[in-house]
Amino acid sequence: MREALAAAHRSGLVVSEGLVAHGRGEAFDYLLGERTHPGALRAERVAAQWLRAARHPVVSVNGNVAALGAHGIARLARAVPGLAVEVNLFHRSGARARRVADALRAAGVREVLGVRPTARIPGLPSDRAKVDRHGIAEADVCLVPLEDGDRTEALRALGKRVISIDLNPLSRTSRAANLPIVDELTRALHEIAAAAARRPDGRGSGRFAPFDRRAALAEALREIGVGLTRAAAQRPLAPPPLRASPRRSRGTAGRRRRTP
Amino acid sequence: MREALAAAHRSGLVVSEGLVAHGRGEAFDYLLGERTHPGALRAERVAAQWLRAARHPVVSVNGNVAALGAHGIARLARAVPGLAVEVNLFHRSGARARRVADALRAAGVREVLGVRPTARIPGLPSDRAKVDRHGIAEADVCLVPLEDGDRTEALRALGKRVISIDLNPLSRTSRAANLPIVDELTRALHEIAAAAARRPDGRGSGRFAPFDRRAALAEALREIGVGLTRAAAQRPLAPPPLRASPRRSRGTAGRRRRTP
Repeated sequence: MREALAAAHRSGLVVSEGLVAHGRGEAFDYLLGERTHPGALRAERVAAQWLRAARHPVVSVNGNVAALGAHGIARLARAVPGLAVEVNLFHRSGARARRVADALRAAGVREVLGVRPTARIPGLPSDRAKVDRHGIAEADVCLVPLEDGDRTEALRALGKRVISIDLNPLSRTSRAANLPIVDELTRALHEIAAAAARRPDGRGSGRFAPFDRRAALAEALREIGVGLTRAAAQRPLAPPPLRASPRRSRGTAGRRRRTP
Repeated sequence: MREALAAAHRSGLVVSEGLVAHGRGEAFDYLLGERTHPGALRAERVAAQWLRAARHPVVSVNGNVAALGAHGIARLARAVPGLAVEVNLFHRSGARARRVADALRAAGVREVLGVRPTARIPGLPSDRAKVDRHGIAEADVCLVPLEDGDRTEALRALGKRVISIDLNPLSRTSRAANLPIVDELTRALHEIAAAAARRPDGRGSGRFAPFDRRAALAEALREIGVGLTRAAAQRPLAPPPLRASPRRSRGTAGRRRRTP
């Protein structure tokens, strides 16, 4: 995954900030045991129901999502008929937006919105607010993987239902979303698409299953706590600490090589 | 700090993997409350004692360390007479090694080893093993900020005392080091240098204060656990979840803009 991101960074799809953000996610995934915990799986199934029940569901795609999850997005779009796919970038340029759209189309997404934005989300600085009038501007349910907190809050303020995918249960995005999924992007997209494909009923019904986001976030934090406790019980890796009076580091290979 | 890293990445000082690694550190620092916790401060004071007591102390510097901590390294070198400063890169090229050395010299480090390696650490794949015969190869105490686990273990296997600076208390580096400092790089360098400057006695004595690395790591994990518990008690940020039958997202600014 890191190699895919580094390659996407070289090609201009992913920005430097995206690499740093990915690292933050890696740390949380590590603490979560790099697996979909039961609470996340429940959230992903409810997310599938919400996307099917929505009248105008939209998934927002940034550079990291396109680099790591383009195929997952394509699969989700097949499993949720009517799901709009929209490019939405924090660090926007026309060229980058086109690159994200190209990556999505190459993975099999037929229509990509947001390359030429036609509307704005109020309350956000210029570039981050740009959306498509037939996409996010009109959405009743927005799936925002790897989103920033300000934008998540702005979408909430518009009365939209927000489903987030974010490994940090403490982030503003996770705390502001109606349905925070605390899981790794590709695993989450896979599970949501699989759940949506299993139950193709209720499309556009406008009836949304209840979801206790507070309990979901608390459960993710508990999972991390359990992982920490398990890790704290591990022994240190190396031999026991040296004694107060140490042996000198003579006769190392480094020294040996000095007298070939 | 992120901007400094992004600029250092553009100039070739920091590699893509370094940006991801920085993100991992950010996540742990966030969980630690972005402050030097009491256990870290104790570790930093013992580290200062060890560097002063060493006969041949060396600090290893990679791209991220040079980008974020060059001035801290220079300050530490002034506070610990005899401290060798050595470039040591995971992703090595001659040009990158020179860039790291240039950054250190620009910050005031007088002599920089490791630009043209003259020895090897046994048991590591080629580039990562390259060291200076008068630097790391000969060291009795190595300070390794932001080090990788394999190299930390290889240094331990050579019988060297290893002091690590790594925000992840669960990393192989933290678990293998004799003296793991779980703190952010610039804060840690600042505290070690300050402690070394306060007590200029005992230079090269070879008498090292005891340090319980297992207790130190357990304390860092407890600090993270406390932070998680505190965070779990916070209320979600946004208004309460929408009801099962939602209002439609009509009349948003996006829609308003369609009819100017």
